Amino acid sequence: MTRRFALMIDPAAADDSRSDFADTFTLVDAAAPALSVGELSTQRGDGVFESIGVVDGHAQEVVPHLERLAHSAQLCDLPIPHQTQWRQAVERAAAHCEEGEYVIKLILSRGVEHGPTPTAWVTAAPASDFSTVREQGIRVVTLDRGYDLDIAERAPWLLLGAKTLSYAVNMAALREAHRRGADDAIFLSRDGFVLEAPTASLILRVGDRFVTPEPNGGILHGTTQLSVYEHLAGRGFAVEYGRIPASDLPRADAAWLVSSVRLAAAITAVDGADLPVDRALTAELNEYLLSPRD
Amino acid sequence: MTRRFALMIDPAAADDSRSDFADTFTLVDAAAPALSVGELSTQRGDGVFESIGVVDGHAQEVVPHLERLAHSAQLCDLPIPHQTQWRQAVERAAAHCEEGEYVIKLILSRGVEHGPTPTAWVTAAPASDFSTVREQGIRVVTLDRGYDLDIAERAPWLLLGAKTLSYAVNMAALREAHRRGADDAIFLSRDGFVLEAPTASLILRVGDRFVTPEPNGGILHGTTQLSVYEHLAGRGFAVEYGRIPASDLPRADAAWLVSSVRLAAAITAVDGADLPVDRALTAELNEYLLSPRD
Repeated sequence: MTRRFALMIDPAAADDSRSDFADTFTLVDAAAPALSVGELSTQRGDGVFESIGVVDGHAQEVVPHLERLAHSAQLCDLPIPHQTQWRQAVERAAAHCEEGEYVIKLILSRGVEHGPTPTAWVTAAPASDFSTVREQGIRVVTLDRGYDLDIAERAPWLLLGAKTLSYAVNMAALREAHRRGADDAIFLSRDGFVLEAPTASLILRVGDRFVTPEPNGGILHGTTQLSVYEHLAGRGFAVEYGRIPASDLPRADAAWLVSSVRLAAAITAVDGADLPVDRALTAELNEYLLSPRD
Repeated sequence: MTRRFALMIDPAAADDSRSDFADTFTLVDAAAPALSVGELSTQRGDGVFESIGVVDGHAQEVVPHLERLAHSAQLCDLPIPHQTQWRQAVERAAAHCEEGEYVIKLILSRGVEHGPTPTAWVTAAPASDFSTVREQGIRVVTLDRGYDLDIAERAPWLLLGAKTLSYAVNMAALREAHRRGADDAIFLSRDGFVLEAPTASLILRVGDRFVTPEPNGGILHGTTQLSVYEHLAGRGFAVEYGRIPASDLPRADAAWLVSSVRLAAAITAVDGADLPVDRALTAELNEYLLSPRD
């Protein structure tokens, strides 16, 4: 078993007449050259992706991730990924993950410049150790995302609901957060509403209600947020989507950033002001998120 | 001589003690795998780039492009590219270009995930044939960029003045323009000012004055726009930077999109309404832009 794994996928070879896609996959060395310099993913960030958590060999919520990949592809006018082909690729990747936590990444690129078809690949690698973060929580700062809350509907070419490879701004926001002594950032809309983190969704607790920003196309609909909501609803809590004014964030009774690999991280401070932390619920959420989920 | 050329650059090997950087370059096959799947350029569009026009073996305005690459790198917290190293890489690439028009691309990526240094490379390839476009002009549509004109100063993490690899939105805007029967797009700010095209700068003619949107950090400062301004000023025209309301665009006496490889393309229509075309000046500008420039 290698700890890092990479599999090229031939999306052009996918059709409904077959059930086994093994011969559309090519195993490559994750550390060796595998992509040409003409790749539009690399030249233009032109493609879409997903990150899937793997716990003790079990890839979490594969179908919701594949559905979101397909949604992102549609928003970017890319050929829709064949669900069975990609599920089999994820299974191959998961089979290479050992005990503990891994991350599987799915990438669908527009392909090589002037080329006929997209390029696609799946990787698997050990996840960073987030156990301390899950216990201790994170400090966040709020950063202006520059867009109005309702921009996505008016301007679909901004690709706001798509998880594209063009993440330079997301990465810059994380660096800005670190520069300010925080661990993560929360984007605000220009008109003063809470959006999402660069690589996570936000959930607030207000009394016994949980609320998360409405995924109206302006933010990604978090697969982990959906999973957490399912768990909380099963526990009898009210879970809601809404337009959340930025001023609600520092007044929340608790708040979390949730994502597929780091899972639930309690927010301990917003822009330097402490926020209450619900340690018991955070532990419960992470226990749930680490259990096998489909 | 090969028609496509690719050279990997080792940015970590650059220091001021040397004058010849040949042994920091590795020639690679442009069509063969050269980059690993862990590349952050490909996973996150995390890096910066430049495109340089080459005419009959002469790379145009290499220094302004290298200076802008350095400016972009600085905005993205990337190590500043060593100017002499990169100039020598561009010279190597230009030496592989035959007669006619080529494009040299410079890419500086944050490198491989968890890796110690950036990845960098230069490519050269034949340019598309833009002779018809230069003669016939282009139809454009205006598209909302979603940002206020002054956002860059307030929110530097949006990287608006950097030429990053995260161009998915630029590519989506071009597809939207094509969908509307146009050739190109012009971005407008949310508050109603003209910005730039996805891969070009805009110059308007109003009487005997030329005006282009102020490069206040919210747009790229076009190397070709600067060159055109130098030419026009030399011809005795007034050239200005300003805040241009969107309503000025369809009332211009002429307008162009200018860029390093397509050069000057006269705008023949904005959102379906015809715009006057100055064929003589367009031809003059392209003749100038095709002459050797440093």
